[in-house]
Amino acid sequence: MKKIVSFYGVFLNLMGACFALPLITALIYQEPGSIRAFSLVMILCFALGFAIRVICGGNINDMEVKPRETYLLVATVWLIASAIGGLPYMLTGVAPSFFDAFFETASGFTTTGATIINDVDAVPKGVLMWRSFSQWLGGMGIIVLFVALLPKFGIKARNIASAETPGPTVTKLSTTFTGTAQRLYIAYLILTGAQTVLLMTGGLNFYDAINHSFTTMATGGFSTYGASIAAFNSNYVTWIITIFMFLAGTNFELFFVAVFGSIKKAFKNEEFRLYLAIVLSAITLITISLMTQGGYTDLFQAVTDSAFQVMTITSTTGYATVDFALWPTFSLMIIVILMVIGGSSSSTAGGIKVIRLLVMGKLFKREVSMKLHGRVVDDIKVDKRKLLPETLIYIIGFISMYIFTLVLATLVISLTDPVGLVTNFTAVLSCISNVGPGLEAVGPTCTFSFYSDFSKFVLTIVMIAGRLELSTLFIIFTSYYWRPYKV
Amino acid sequence: MKKIVSFYGVFLNLMGACFALPLITALIYQEPGSIRAFSLVMILCFALGFAIRVICGGNINDMEVKPRETYLLVATVWLIASAIGGLPYMLTGVAPSFFDAFFETASGFTTTGATIINDVDAVPKGVLMWRSFSQWLGGMGIIVLFVALLPKFGIKARNIASAETPGPTVTKLSTTFTGTAQRLYIAYLILTGAQTVLLMTGGLNFYDAINHSFTTMATGGFSTYGASIAAFNSNYVTWIITIFMFLAGTNFELFFVAVFGSIKKAFKNEEFRLYLAIVLSAITLITISLMTQGGYTDLFQAVTDSAFQVMTITSTTGYATVDFALWPTFSLMIIVILMVIGGSSSSTAGGIKVIRLLVMGKLFKREVSMKLHGRVVDDIKVDKRKLLPETLIYIIGFISMYIFTLVLATLVISLTDPVGLVTNFTAVLSCISNVGPGLEAVGPTCTFSFYSDFSKFVLTIVMIAGRLELSTLFIIFTSYYWRPYKV
Repeated sequence: MKKIVSFYGVFLNLMGACFALPLITALIYQEPGSIRAFSLVMILCFALGFAIRVICGGNINDMEVKPRETYLLVATVWLIASAIGGLPYMLTGVAPSFFDAFFETASGFTTTGATIINDVDAVPKGVLMWRSFSQWLGGMGIIVLFVALLPKFGIKARNIASAETPGPTVTKLSTTFTGTAQRLYIAYLILTGAQTVLLMTGGLNFYDAINHSFTTMATGGFSTYGASIAAFNSNYVTWIITIFMFLAGTNFELFFVAVFGSIKKAFKNEEFRLYLAIVLSAITLITISLMTQGGYTDLFQAVTDSAFQVMTITSTTGYATVDFALWPTFSLMIIVILMVIGGSSSSTAGGIKVIRLLVMGKLFKREVSMKLHGRVVDDIKVDKRKLLPETLIYIIGFISMYIFTLVLATLVISLTDPVGLVTNFTAVLSCISNVGPGLEAVGPTCTFSFYSDFSKFVLTIVMIAGRLELSTLFIIFTSYYWRPYKV
Repeated sequence: MKKIVSFYGVFLNLMGACFALPLITALIYQEPGSIRAFSLVMILCFALGFAIRVICGGNINDMEVKPRETYLLVATVWLIASAIGGLPYMLTGVAPSFFDAFFETASGFTTTGATIINDVDAVPKGVLMWRSFSQWLGGMGIIVLFVALLPKFGIKARNIASAETPGPTVTKLSTTFTGTAQRLYIAYLILTGAQTVLLMTGGLNFYDAINHSFTTMATGGFSTYGASIAAFNSNYVTWIITIFMFLAGTNFELFFVAVFGSIKKAFKNEEFRLYLAIVLSAITLITISLMTQGGYTDLFQAVTDSAFQVMTITSTTGYATVDFALWPTFSLMIIVILMVIGGSSSSTAGGIKVIRLLVMGKLFKREVSMKLHGRVVDDIKVDKRKLLPETLIYIIGFISMYIFTLVLATLVISLTDPVGLVTNFTAVLSCISNVGPGLEAVGPTCTFSFYSDFSKFVLTIVMIAGRLELSTLFIIFTSYYWRPYKV
C-alpha cells in the first residue's frame, strides 16, 4: 500500500520537471505572470512529491501492483495530472474557474483540443507552450512516458500501461514492454523534430513551429492562434500538417517495420490498409461533394480543404482551416462518421479505432456466411494471426460502452445546457473521441466556454474516459470492482 | 420452382380480397373515384393471381421451401405488396408519382406511418381506409397472416415466417407455428375491437374509431386527420390511445400468459419488466424536463403529453398531439433514444427491440465481472432459459447492421437532398425503426413529400429492411447468397 502511495510521489516529481519547458518559455519572452505561476506550481510538485516519498519510502521499482489496482492507479493519475496541470491557467487568470482549468488541462493531456479560452491570441506564450506541451505529453500516454523513463519499473508495470494504451495491440515488436515504450518515444521524438524543421522552412518561427508540431504529433489540435492553422494562410503549411496528421494517426510500430523491416511489409498491415482506404475515399467523396454541392470551383483548393479536414478529424486532431459546419450535408455526415472511427491502434489518435472496425467487419462477414451455409466457415484472422474469442467480446463491449457513454453524457449535459441536440451530441462525441470541435454551437470557430461548470466537469470526465478507452475509468465505478472476490 | 411461383398467385388473390374493405367504405361514402380505383385493382389482383395459379398449377400446401429461398420469397412479397398496394393512391391522384405511392404503401405495410400526403383531410375516405388497413395487415406480418389463414401451409412455412417475425422469440406458447400465428391474430382482433368500442364511447364515429384502432394496434400511426390525434382535442381519447399503444408494444404472447396462466407470471417476464421500466422512467424524466425547462405549468397536462409522446415513439406508432420538436434538448434526446429502442419482441412495434437491449445489458454485466475476476461467472439467461452463443452473436450482428444502415442511408439521401444532418439522420432513423416522424424538416407536423424520388425510394427500402429486421432483405444482396454452396 505504502509503495503505491509513493508511486504518486514519483509521479508528482516528474510532473514538476515537465513545467520546466513552459517556465523557460516564459523567461525568454519575459512574462512575469507566467514565470511566477510556473515556478510556484513546480515548487509545489517537487515539495509534495518528495514529502510523499520520504513519508512512504520504498523504491517503486519493487512495487507489486495487482491487476485490479491498476485501474484505480491509472484513473487517479490522469485525474491528478489534470487537476495540477490546471493550476497555471488559474494562477495566470486564463481560466476563470477550477472547472475551466480542469477542462482545459484534461483536453490537453487527452489530446482532445476542445477549449474554453475565447481569446487565444491574448494568452501569454508560456501558458500556450504548457497547453501544447501537455498534449505532447499525453499523446503517448502518461504511464507509457513513465515506463520509458524508468525502465526497471516498466518490467513490473506492463498491465498498468495496458490500461491506457490506445487500441487493442495486435502487432508486437519488442519482447519487453519497456522496449516498446522506448521505441514508440523514439519515433515520436523524431517525427516531432522533422515536422518542426519542415514548418520552419515554411516561414514559421521556432516557437510556432514547435508548438504546432507538439499538437500535431499528439493529434491534439491546440494552436497558438485563435484562427488555428488558417492564421498561416499557406497551402505549404496546410499540406505539411495534413501529412503529419496522417502519420500521427498511423500505428507507430509500423514506422519500425518500415525502417528495420521493409516498407512493403508495413503496407501489408491490414489495419493500415483500411486506414488508408478510409482516408482516401473520404477525401475523394468530400472533394466531389464540395465541387458539386458546396460551391467550390477550384479543384486544388477543394482537395486541399478536403484532405486537411479529413485528416484533422480522422486523426482526431481538431485543427481548423475552414468552417466545415457550412459544408453540404453529405460532407458533414462523412465528418461525423470519421469522428466516430478515429485513427489506428498504437497511434496518438482517439475514437473507436480502425482495428476495431476491421474486426467488426470480419465478424459480420463471417456471420452472413454462417447464416447462409449453416456452419462456422473460418476463424477471424488479422494479419494472419487468429483472434481469440475474448478479443471479439472485448471489442463489442467497447463499442457498446462507447455508444452508451455518448448517449448518457448527452442527456446529462442537456440538464443544465438545453442548447440543442446537435450541439450537445457532437460536443460529447468530440470529447469521447478526443477530437476537439463539434458542430453548431461547438463548431470549429466556437469554444466550450458557454457550458455550465457541471457540464464542463461531465465533459472532462468523458474526455479522460475516452482517452483511457472507457473501461479503465468506468470499471472503478462498478459495484463489482469494490466487492470482495467471490468464488 | 413452379410451386414457388404459384405461391405468388395465392398471395395476389389474398391481396385482392383485402381491397374489399376500402371498396365497401368507398361505396358507403359514395366516392366514384375510389370505387373505380379499388374495383380495378381488385380485378387486377384476382385475374393475375388466378392466371399464375392456372399456369403453374400445384397446391402451395405441398410447397417445399429451402432455407435460402425463404429470404428471397419474403423480401419479394413485401416489395410486390408495396408496389400493388400503391396503385389506388396513383389511380385516385392522391400520390403524384410511382415513388410516392410506393413510399406511402410501404410506410403502411411496415407500420412506419411516414407520409408524403400534404393534405390528409382532402383525401377520399375509401383511400384513407386502405391506408389504415394496410398498417393493420402489415402489423403482424404479411406472411404470418398467410399462415394464420392457411393452416396446412403453415406447417411447412415455419422458417418463412421466422424471416419476418419481429424480434428474436424467446417465449414459445404453441407447439405448432400455425397455432402461434392464429393465437397472435386472436389477441390482435380482440384488442382492435376493444379499442374501437372505447374510442366510440369517447365520441368518435365508427369510421374514425376503426381507422385509429387499426393504426394504433399496428403501431402504424396513420390518422384520418392532418392534425392527427390533436384533431380530437380530448384527454380521454389521448389516454385511451396511449394505453393501447402501450399494449401494442408489448409481447402479444404475454396476453395469453396473463389470460390462461396468471397475470403475475406475465409480470415476471424480464423483457416486459424492462419495457415497463423504460416507459415509466422516460415519462417521469420528460415530465420533469417539461415542468422545469419546457414552460409547462399544469402537471396533468405535462404527464398527458409526456406519456402520449413516450408511447407513440417507444411503440413506434408516430401519432402526434404536440410538436415535440419544440421541447427542451433533454426531452428530445430521450425521444431519439426511444426511437432506437422501440417496443418488445413479438409485438407490432419496430426498433432494435427491448429484448436485444436486455441481452446486451446482461452481456455487458458479465464482461465487467469477467474482466475483474478473470473467469466466466455465469451463462446469460433470460427468463431462466440459457441463451445460446449464436443468439448473442446474432443480436450483435443485428445492432451493427442497424447502425451501418442508419449511417449509409443518411449519406445516400444526402446526395440528392442536402437538407441538413438532423433532418436526414432522423428521417432514416424514423424509417428503419418504423416510427414515422423525425426531427426538424421531417418533424411531427411535416411530411416526407419534399424528398427526391431517389431518396423516397431509398427510404422505402430502409422501411422494409427495418420491418424485416434487416437481414432478410439485405442477405439477398450479398455475393454469398448467390454463390453456390461451397464445402
